[in-house]
Amino acid sequence: VKKIGIIGAGAWGTALAQCLANAGHGVTIWALEPEVVTSINEQRENTSYFPGISLNEKIQATGDMLHAAKNDIVLLVTPAQFLRHTLKELKGHVDANTPLVICSKGIELGTGDLLSEIAAEEMPDADFAILTGPTFASEVAKGLPCAVTIAAQNKNIAQQICDGLANNRLRPYSTDDVIGAQIGSAVKNVMAIACGIIYGKGLGENARAALITRGLAEIARLAAAMGGKRETLMGLCGIGDLILTCSSMESRNFSFGAALGKGQKMEEILGERKAVTEGVHTAKALMVMAKKYKVDMPIAETVYKCLFENLSVDEAIESMLSRPVRPENQ
Amino acid sequence: VKKIGIIGAGAWGTALAQCLANAGHGVTIWALEPEVVTSINEQRENTSYFPGISLNEKIQATGDMLHAAKNDIVLLVTPAQFLRHTLKELKGHVDANTPLVICSKGIELGTGDLLSEIAAEEMPDADFAILTGPTFASEVAKGLPCAVTIAAQNKNIAQQICDGLANNRLRPYSTDDVIGAQIGSAVKNVMAIACGIIYGKGLGENARAALITRGLAEIARLAAAMGGKRETLMGLCGIGDLILTCSSMESRNFSFGAALGKGQKMEEILGERKAVTEGVHTAKALMVMAKKYKVDMPIAETVYKCLFENLSVDEAIESMLSRPVRPENQ
Repeated sequence: VKKIGIIGAGAWGTALAQCLANAGHGVTIWALEPEVVTSINEQRENTSYFPGISLNEKIQATGDMLHAAKNDIVLLVTPAQFLRHTLKELKGHVDANTPLVICSKGIELGTGDLLSEIAAEEMPDADFAILTGPTFASEVAKGLPCAVTIAAQNKNIAQQICDGLANNRLRPYSTDDVIGAQIGSAVKNVMAIACGIIYGKGLGENARAALITRGLAEIARLAAAMGGKRETLMGLCGIGDLILTCSSMESRNFSFGAALGKGQKMEEILGERKAVTEGVHTAKALMVMAKKYKVDMPIAETVYKCLFENLSVDEAIESMLSRPVRPENQ
Repeated sequence: VKKIGIIGAGAWGTALAQCLANAGHGVTIWALEPEVVTSINEQRENTSYFPGISLNEKIQATGDMLHAAKNDIVLLVTPAQFLRHTLKELKGHVDANTPLVICSKGIELGTGDLLSEIAAEEMPDADFAILTGPTFASEVAKGLPCAVTIAAQNKNIAQQICDGLANNRLRPYSTDDVIGAQIGSAVKNVMAIACGIIYGKGLGENARAALITRGLAEIARLAAAMGGKRETLMGLCGIGDLILTCSSMESRNFSFGAALGKGQKMEEILGERKAVTEGVHTAKALMVMAKKYKVDMPIAETVYKCLFENLSVDEAIESMLSRPVRPENQ
């Protein structure tokens, strides 16, 4: 049994808190908003970000981030765009033996940095790991089983975190390919838009399976060009996460693509939404990365052109279908 | 434009005939049953195996297998268990320059041979290739797009077949890993049963994505042990086919697993079915292969025990969830 600190009380942070508390760990979760702290501690419910789930008594909420950081393992679950800010606050206040596990997903807009790169810049001496994989927060909070990738350059750290977090609802698998482990989750939302388009147009399951597979090939090419390993993308962090994101209307990016495929305009769809559709931003960032690392990403490029360069949905589909024949592993 | 012969007029052979005829090729399809030949030639419909699809005029059916074999490219689409018999009939009657493309999927029960192994035994001098990937016949026949893997040891043959078959509804990708390309489609049905069980039990999308991913890892381990390449399984023939089979009630194996998960007994489910649920047989064959090649296949083993050794569905799920933590790429 461990003492686990969780920085960030959004849906995913709350789901992880519930899963780990249910497994018997002591959990302290930090929330930015005082009303979230109060609602967790007094109502045993995160009414702002996870209404309807009755939280385990072992979860303690706090408004003091440094208090949550004093634990055996600390999970960082703030939105990707706030990770740098969070680390600046934590710096100098985390015990040297405490591994920090980044559970957010994404690329820092502006810099194009991976979250591990932000971590290395902001807290170069700390032990970081990445937790990623196919995990809808709603299912994890309900106690349904899932499996995740734990990536850390230091294999012992990865194993220590796996052993610390493993329980009969959460199965971790370790890898030392930190870069490869992050690319899948960072890029998947763009592929989910492409799959949504195919789905919205009624092009069938064969086409969707093909698009997921060729999307994976693009992601693996990018990962390899950035110093990761292609085969890491065969794991939960790659194909696992991609399957989930490209198969369910619960994914905002997939449902966004589906609406495009059905003929709605981008502005119209986004205008109706409160939450961010990350793939739209990632598509832009990805074009910069593809160019920088000289990687051919035809599906991502098609999505980009469809969103920002007035390529019609029909032209986009035609472009995805009519690419020249090529060997499969390139 | 090519002249294409298709040996076998089941659903998949008929769908391929329609797809290739629509792309402008001349197609001759061989059917075992005279009534199928008549129905295709006179009614422009395969009333036995594909009712409801109006067939292209360019499709000519024949009851003479050797007539269908006299073409630029010959596709072999008989059921896997009949491939050996078909090749014995064709032997000596196929032009040396005609590539033979095996479009069936499966393992020969009894011998445990891959279809390429049967081909090498029966017609050692012929140029064989494998066509595989995520393809529901019903969608292909309707003119919906798909992508496939073409595998041949001789890269020129693979490329020649890709170029010959490629059209805007069928995108082939080539590989020279003939073994790797076959393992995915041969084994996927067992994984589909496992995914069906998870689905039937209501364990959620996270668990299904995790199971598909870990299923892929098992398949890749087996492929590598048999002399194929792990990375081939990242392609359409591997993860592509697996996604399709593990995601849709159109898959007989997935729906069989789902019924098991909901509490029905195997005998009860199979008794109601006319068509074969291949995964049930493959599960047996796979245990022999896993042992022969010394490969750890925990998911396949669990399915086997669930089908043949009275392991309960709940015990099966517990066993799939509680495996020891391991590195992801093993």
